[in-house]
Amino acid sequence: MSAGSAVRLPTAAPGYEEGAAWVDGACVPSGEAKVSIVDTGFSRSDVTYDVVAVWGGAFFRLDDHLERFERSCAGLRMTLAHSREELAGILAELVRVAGLREAYVEVICTRGVSRGGVRDPRTFENRFFAYAVPYVWLLPVAEADTGMDAVVTRTVRRIPSESVDPTIKNFHWGDLTRGLYEAYDRGARYPILLDADGRVTEGAGYNVFALVDGRLLTPATGTLEGITRRVVLELAEQEGIPAAPADLPEAELRRGTELFATSTAGGVMPITSLDGEPVGDGRVGPLTRRLRERYWAAHEDPRHTTPVDYAGA
Amino acid sequence: MSAGSAVRLPTAAPGYEEGAAWVDGACVPSGEAKVSIVDTGFSRSDVTYDVVAVWGGAFFRLDDHLERFERSCAGLRMTLAHSREELAGILAELVRVAGLREAYVEVICTRGVSRGGVRDPRTFENRFFAYAVPYVWLLPVAEADTGMDAVVTRTVRRIPSESVDPTIKNFHWGDLTRGLYEAYDRGARYPILLDADGRVTEGAGYNVFALVDGRLLTPATGTLEGITRRVVLELAEQEGIPAAPADLPEAELRRGTELFATSTAGGVMPITSLDGEPVGDGRVGPLTRRLRERYWAAHEDPRHTTPVDYAGA
Repeated sequence: MSAGSAVRLPTAAPGYEEGAAWVDGACVPSGEAKVSIVDTGFSRSDVTYDVVAVWGGAFFRLDDHLERFERSCAGLRMTLAHSREELAGILAELVRVAGLREAYVEVICTRGVSRGGVRDPRTFENRFFAYAVPYVWLLPVAEADTGMDAVVTRTVRRIPSESVDPTIKNFHWGDLTRGLYEAYDRGARYPILLDADGRVTEGAGYNVFALVDGRLLTPATGTLEGITRRVVLELAEQEGIPAAPADLPEAELRRGTELFATSTAGGVMPITSLDGEPVGDGRVGPLTRRLRERYWAAHEDPRHTTPVDYAGA
Repeated sequence: MSAGSAVRLPTAAPGYEEGAAWVDGACVPSGEAKVSIVDTGFSRSDVTYDVVAVWGGAFFRLDDHLERFERSCAGLRMTLAHSREELAGILAELVRVAGLREAYVEVICTRGVSRGGVRDPRTFENRFFAYAVPYVWLLPVAEADTGMDAVVTRTVRRIPSESVDPTIKNFHWGDLTRGLYEAYDRGARYPILLDADGRVTEGAGYNVFALVDGRLLTPATGTLEGITRRVVLELAEQEGIPAAPADLPEAELRRGTELFATSTAGGVMPITSLDGEPVGDGRVGPLTRRLRERYWAAHEDPRHTTPVDYAGA
C-alpha cells in the first residue's frame, strides 16, 4: 500500500488538471461537468452510480463494478445508452486524458428531464455521466495506522430497504449526512448507522466488518453489497478465517476485537475507536492488517485488473 | 379556478421562453441552469428546496414559503447567502424576466462542493439556486373534474422520519418514484405511501386529505407540512368543518367519502378513485369542490399575496 502517485502522466491533456468528465457524449474538464437542475437525477435524486478505482495504471475489478452499475440501472428501470465495452472505453479515455495512474472513477445514470410537462418518468431519456479524478481516500493516508474514529449514531437510522433499496447504489444520503454531523458533534468523523431493529447497516460510504469470536462478520441486509466487501470476504476465506454476511446487532459490533470499514475509496480501513472507546487495544489488529495488505496486493493480480491504454485508442 | 395564462407578458426577455433561473448570482435562461455533478446537493442529495406559486401576477403566501425554506436550511445546518427580502427580490426578477403571470417558482440550497478533498460538510460553501417557469399542474387542468386515480402502494413504504425528516423539504424521492412506477404498473398515476405502521403519509409531491364521518383528516406525521395543506385546514375551519392533522390508518382512508390531494402545483385536487374503486360516487365531492373554489379565491386576498412588480426594480 502506498499513497498512490499524484504526478500526472505525460498523456494528461491541458486543462484537465482536476480530472476529466464525460457529459453529453463528450470529454470535458471535470470542473465543467454539470447536470440540469430540472434533471430528476437532481430534483428527485432519481439516479444511480458506481465507483471503480484505477491503481497502478489499471482498473480494479472493472467488470464487477460495471455489472453492478448495469444491475442498478435495470433495478431503477433506466436504460444505459452504452454497452459494457463502450463504458470501459469511455472510462479509459477519461483516465488517459486526466493523466492519472491512480484514479477515482465514477459512472452515473440519471432519469433525465421531463419533456413537455409529462410527469411519467418512463418517458424520460436517461442520461449518462462519468468522471475520473485523483484517487480519493475516505481515511487520509497519513492516518492509515491511526485508524477511523467511529460512532454508532443515536439520532438517525438508516433508510430501510422497504423505502430505498440499498443494493442499488444511490445518492439518498440524507441519513448518512445526519450521521456525519452527529459524528462531528461527538468529536469523531465516521458514523455507523443502525436499522430500526438495532442492527448495523453501513456508514457514510463504507461497509463495516467486525471480528467476533474468531469469525469475521459484515451486515447481510440494509447495506450496499460493496465490491471491496466482496473482495475482503474472498480474501478472508483464503486466509482460513470464517467470514460471512450476517445479522450484526449493535452488541455484537461492540464485542468485536477488530473492526474495519471497506470502500473503493480507501480499501480496508481500520476502525480503532468506537464511541470514544478503543477497539481492542486501540491499534490496527493483525487480521485487519493482513487483509489490508492482501487487498492492495490483489491490485496486481491480472485476473482482476484491466490496464489502461495510455497510448490512446 | 382557471388554467392560468400561458401568454407571456411584454416584460419577458428574449431567450427566456422556457423560464428564468438564478445561478451564481445572475439571471440566466432556465435551460442553462445547472449544478456541478460534484456538488453534494447532487452527489449526496444534500439539498433542500421550496416551491411558491405566482397566480394572477402575485406570489401566494410568499412569506410562508420563504419562512419554511429558511427553516429547512437551518434544519440541515446550511447558511443562506440571502436575506428574506433579497430572496423575494430575486424571485420577482425571475418572474418578471420570464414574463409569467402564473408561475411555478422554486428556491434551492445545496450543501456545495468539497474543497481540497475535505469531507467535512461543515466546511462547504452552501449554494443558492432559483427558477421560475410556467405554473405546473400535478393533475392536468383538463382532468380537474375527472380527478386523480390513486393507489395505496404495496411495494414501497415512505422513508421514515428517523432517517430523513420529511418536514425539511427534500429530494429524497426514491420511495416516491418507486410508488409512481407501481401506480403506472397498476394502471393509475398517483401513489399514496404508507409508513411502517400502515398509516398514510403522503404522495409523490402532495399531501392527502380524507373526509371521514364528517371530519376532514390529513396525516399528522411522516409527511411534509405543506403550505397548501395549511391553507386547506384554515379554509375548512372557516367552513365549520372539523379538520385536523391526525393519524390516518389505511382503513380510515378507505372509509373516506371524499378524498383529495393538495400541492402548490395544482392546489386542491380531487381523488376520485382508489385502487381502481370509485371514491364515494366517483365524482368530485361537495366539500372538495367548495375547498377548491375557496382555495383559488384566497389567491385574491391581499393579506396573502405579494404582487410582482413587472415594471422592474
